[in-house]
Amino acid sequence: MANTEILELVSTNKVFDGELRKYKFKASLSKTPTRRRLTMASATAHVPLLVYLAGLTCTEDNGAQKGGFFGPAAAKGIALLFPDTSPRGAGVEGEDTDWDFGVGAGFYLNATNPAFSKHYNMLTHVTLELPQVLGAAGLPIDLKRQSVFGHSIYERKVHSSIPSSFDLGGHGALTLYLASKTNQYRSVSAFSPICNPINCPWGQKAFKGYLQGGTTEAAEQYDATELIKKRTDPVRILIDYGTADNFYKQGQLLPENFVKAAREAGHDESQVQARSQDGYDHSYFFISTFATDHINFHAEFLL
Amino acid sequence: MANTEILELVSTNKVFDGELRKYKFKASLSKTPTRRRLTMASATAHVPLLVYLAGLTCTEDNGAQKGGFFGPAAAKGIALLFPDTSPRGAGVEGEDTDWDFGVGAGFYLNATNPAFSKHYNMLTHVTLELPQVLGAAGLPIDLKRQSVFGHSIYERKVHSSIPSSFDLGGHGALTLYLASKTNQYRSVSAFSPICNPINCPWGQKAFKGYLQGGTTEAAEQYDATELIKKRTDPVRILIDYGTADNFYKQGQLLPENFVKAAREAGHDESQVQARSQDGYDHSYFFISTFATDHINFHAEFLL
Repeated sequence: MANTEILELVSTNKVFDGELRKYKFKASLSKTPTRRRLTMASATAHVPLLVYLAGLTCTEDNGAQKGGFFGPAAAKGIALLFPDTSPRGAGVEGEDTDWDFGVGAGFYLNATNPAFSKHYNMLTHVTLELPQVLGAAGLPIDLKRQSVFGHSIYERKVHSSIPSSFDLGGHGALTLYLASKTNQYRSVSAFSPICNPINCPWGQKAFKGYLQGGTTEAAEQYDATELIKKRTDPVRILIDYGTADNFYKQGQLLPENFVKAAREAGHDESQVQARSQDGYDHSYFFISTFATDHINFHAEFLL
Repeated sequence: MANTEILELVSTNKVFDGELRKYKFKASLSKTPTRRRLTMASATAHVPLLVYLAGLTCTEDNGAQKGGFFGPAAAKGIALLFPDTSPRGAGVEGEDTDWDFGVGAGFYLNATNPAFSKHYNMLTHVTLELPQVLGAAGLPIDLKRQSVFGHSIYERKVHSSIPSSFDLGGHGALTLYLASKTNQYRSVSAFSPICNPINCPWGQKAFKGYLQGGTTEAAEQYDATELIKKRTDPVRILIDYGTADNFYKQGQLLPENFVKAAREAGHDESQVQARSQDGYDHSYFFISTFATDHINFHAEFLL
């Protein structure tokens, strides 16, 4: 099915009449080391692609195992791509010291801090390298039709003292969509994303570590609220967040800032919809509840 | 919602408009030590109960996180109960030496081997103690309407040399249903169950360890193929298994033995349906694909 010189098949599972395949390949464009893998389910030939960005400490497996995306995606005929969240085994000093920075926390940016800039290039990896590899491998994907969505949930139970989840993938999806110069993605959706990372501690820590220019540099390219202010063309954005989400309650997510900026830039409800879901938290139970909604939202623009 | 002297709430997540609650309580009837927990989602008051039995090495979390059961169960108004798979912290010598025996591998039987018989009483726990506790705690469950289903998947990645999955929950569901003297469960379904454990190595090992009479004792009560031979009243059984399931291919599951015995005992397709699903394996990707089918099958008898 795929050119095996480009993509090496790691495992395969049949699911909802489609196939979930895990591949590994040698990243050259983003210079991330081996062990980079991707997982994809595709129902029929030349289907559009919906990219799912997982969150802090996650891998390419979390969304595939717990998201509940395969049923609705198969019903619509949309392929799903689950990239990993960071390089693995890059060997950068300090990359595995913290749970919220480095391995498992690539933040979907291209690092400019010299210590990380060789390997931590998740922006290039997701937006350029993966589509190139999928195309070169001859997979039955129509790369002219792409959308992106994301969430994150903290999974490494070994650290019981730290927060149980963190929204990296939603942030990644929004910023990749909004910052694209080529309108690479037709639509974006996010489950309880961090919407204004330059104004929250996790974002500030990551940007300081990865970027020479810190939050000032980040505001240009990696902050959804800053980015929406500059978009004057029509956008297609769906956000869901739960009122029982502790990070929302702590003011880490700040969807209100994003919606306010969007409205001020002229994007109404038909372009930017942020739904407050009563009583839901930050877990995959929340995500799976609204999985079908999100797939159907993207299907509108992909099919 | 529940009497907190009986059930202590550990966590709660909203899912598909219902609630997933994890409780712990002190088991007295089955004499299993503390840390016994259960997880339950209930949509509305006095709904019927569908019990999900997870498999070897699993806990009460696996089916809840990966099964994809909440959407279809909420649509039908059925509560789901996810018991743990064994006592935890019983302290029996040797209980945590093997991955396929002892902790995480209670086999849904009452042990008669004196070393295990004090604590390893999963049959009593699931069929008597949990309903009693749910009733006493005042949860909005109609215990006169119960069904049972199960599967299992091996999850402890720490043992990479051992098989990646094992069908304990399907075996448990079939035997609890078939052996019940009171017809406690209205229907049973199983994902790739071990159907004839006295004739497979895992069953033989477990029965030898837990039961004084070994497989001879097991044949009376804990082997689905032996049990169906003795059932002359109508039964309601649905089994799905995948043709790419390595345990099926190795002859560990033996659904054909079960179907043959069922037909000889006069149970036709309308009573015992075993579906061979082309290309599916033993994972939760397989389970989630057919989750709605199984919930709808039980709904027919529960509603």
